[in-house]
Amino acid sequence: MAIQSVGIIGLGLLGGSIGLAIAKHCPDIRTMGYDADPEARNAARDRGLVQTVCDTAAAAAEKADLVILCVPVGAMGFAADAVRSALPDGVIVSDVGSSKQSVADTLRAALPDITVIPAHPVAGTEQSGPEAGFAELFEGRWCILTPPDDVSETDIGALSEFWRSLGSKIEIMDAQHHDLVLAVTSHIPHLIAYTIVGTASDLEEVTRSEVIKYSAGGFRDFTRIAASDPTMWRDVFLNNKDAVLEMLGRFTEDLTALQRAIRRGDGDALHELFTRTRAIRRSIIEQGQDV
Amino acid sequence: MAIQSVGIIGLGLLGGSIGLAIAKHCPDIRTMGYDADPEARNAARDRGLVQTVCDTAAAAAEKADLVILCVPVGAMGFAADAVRSALPDGVIVSDVGSSKQSVADTLRAALPDITVIPAHPVAGTEQSGPEAGFAELFEGRWCILTPPDDVSETDIGALSEFWRSLGSKIEIMDAQHHDLVLAVTSHIPHLIAYTIVGTASDLEEVTRSEVIKYSAGGFRDFTRIAASDPTMWRDVFLNNKDAVLEMLGRFTEDLTALQRAIRRGDGDALHELFTRTRAIRRSIIEQGQDV
Ligand SMILES: NC(=O)c1ccc[n+]([C@@H]2O[C@H](COP(=O)([O-])OP(=O)(O)OC[C@H]3O[C@@H](n4cnc5c(N)ncnc54)[C@H](OP(=O)(O)O)[C@@H]3O)[C@@H](O)[C@H]2O)c1
Ligand SMILES: NC(=O)c1ccc[n+]([C@@H]2O[C@H](COP(=O)([O-])OP(=O)(O)OC[C@H]3O[C@@H](n4cnc5c(N)ncnc54)[C@H](OP(=O)(O)O)[C@@H]3O)[C@@H](O)[C@H]2O)c1
Repeated sequence: MAIQSVGIIGLGLLGGSIGLAIAKHCPDIRTMGYDADPEARNAARDRGLVQTVCDTAAAAAEKADLVILCVPVGAMGFAADAVRSALPDGVIVSDVGSSKQSVADTLRAALPDITVIPAHPVAGTEQSGPEAGFAELFEGRWCILTPPDDVSETDIGALSEFWRSLGSKIEIMDAQHHDLVLAVTSHIPHLIAYTIVGTASDLEEVTRSEVIKYSAGGFRDFTRIAASDPTMWRDVFLNNKDAVLEMLGRFTEDLTALQRAIRRGDGDALHELFTRTRAIRRSIIEQGQDV
Repeated sequence: MAIQSVGIIGLGLLGGSIGLAIAKHCPDIRTMGYDADPEARNAARDRGLVQTVCDTAAAAAEKADLVILCVPVGAMGFAADAVRSALPDGVIVSDVGSSKQSVADTLRAALPDITVIPAHPVAGTEQSGPEAGFAELFEGRWCILTPPDDVSETDIGALSEFWRSLGSKIEIMDAQHHDLVLAVTSHIPHLIAYTIVGTASDLEEVTRSEVIKYSAGGFRDFTRIAASDPTMWRDVFLNNKDAVLEMLGRFTEDLTALQRAIRRGDGDALHELFTRTRAIRRSIIEQGQDV
């Protein structure tokens, strides 16, 4: 079964980009969308993020083969409740949330008789809202599906095919492993960036204007990450608590070891680590995951 | 006194960029250069990083009004020793090292009767070596001078004018304050990036190939920073120990507080910090220090 109509709930960076990517790559798929924010709906109409911007979530879902929830992780339950009664037979419900185990649990509880395949396109920027989306967001990026055991291969295949047609590469993983992997490659980097930017802006000995002026030395990259949407990221940390705390523990251990090396003047230990980390960068460039 | 000839010791990213920036902006200034690595000297000749690539540091310095040491912070003493006997009357010796107090002490001890004005152009990339330099590196960036008390206004003015002509903006600061400011805006960000990339590559539950595949979620920006030159950064941490350890202490305190907020599920505390950090990003963009 190929997807022929998609209902998008939440028309921010992710929802808007999906709408635009469909228009670019699969102009035959019909798109309906809804956002809780009336201003976002107006902006979505102006930008043509979907073909039909609806005034209720139910209206955006009722004629869809695939409904994708593109709201913050903490709002997935509300979004599922809002579409439930309108969902047509045979529909697939999916999402794009950055954490997967808690979303899977929430959607299963809210939509017990519906085919739910949680997913996470590993692609994003620090921008958010209906002006932020663009059609190319998913090209060359991985989309991770975390299907529960009872979902059919046909449905998994249909969702995979949909994401491939937007330019993504597909990986299937269980939700818990997803949450651990993303804790390292995304959640902890964001947490650290938020922390250091906060630390820098609270100092007494160094003024905020100095921090800004001399940010070209490395700090500015952290400020970009720490400009990401506060609601989205609050929800990620609240919903991926265990994996984040686990990985944060490893990180602080390693940081303590490095701190000790600096205190002791152990240049060899520093040089060894700094050399080892270059290899990872090279692999990322080779695999086209830079920029 | 306007600078008419410049000797550059170390023809990597910084030294090479200075040579190219002079050729672009001040074609009347003569440039001589030296690098300890014979291959770097050959590459410097091929790329025309300076007008004359010399085979000794002394030869590159002997006819210069301004000698700039562009070597890792830990090599500044050796570079100063190598030029000392050749330095002409009235010369200004400066450097581009990323930490300033220890460099100031080293150069003062090595060159007791010479006018030394330590400096740090706050501009860089993660690339290094003779192929990495480019003429635009300093444009719109700040160059911090940390002149000792006994240096004349005329000499400070001449060095400031030189950096302005390459496109930089000038700030004068004492060396200790420089080291504190840069610990926050550059050294700690690098240390954190090296740490998390190290943590991620040592995990057993998450494979290195997963880390690379899903790096688009934030991690890849850290890998770029953690691909910076190991020798340069080892030297920075060994030479700015006190300020780095001080700022690292603040950072870990803040990280612990955030960890506690996650453990307790305190979404408001997370949201408050994540909102506050956006303001800094806006200021950096307004002041043209992004990208
Ligand atoms: N940003 C990234 O880099 C990235 C990457 C991969 C995955 N994700 C995930 O994608 C999801 C969306 O993120 P985003 O970046 O697209 O956020 P966004 O730009 O802020 O868009 C989310 C939109 O959903 C709306 N919304 C909130 N609750 C709703 C509800 N119950 N019903 C309908 N609309 C609702 C929001 O309106 P209000 O503004 O009025 O709340 C907002 O317009 C999140 O789960 C996030 O974890 C994000
Ligand atoms: N990279 C940045 O982003 C940045 C920004 C601002 C300031 N800085 C500072 O600029 C300085 C240079 O950094 P860089 O990035 O230009 O490094 P780089 O690209 O590695 O260049 C340094 C060059 O100096 C050579 N060298 C080492 N010791 C020498 C000596 N005693 N005499 C002559 N040449 C010698 C090195 O040769 P070998 O390879 O054979 O050792 C290398 O070719 C450092 O102090 C750094 O802290 C760097």
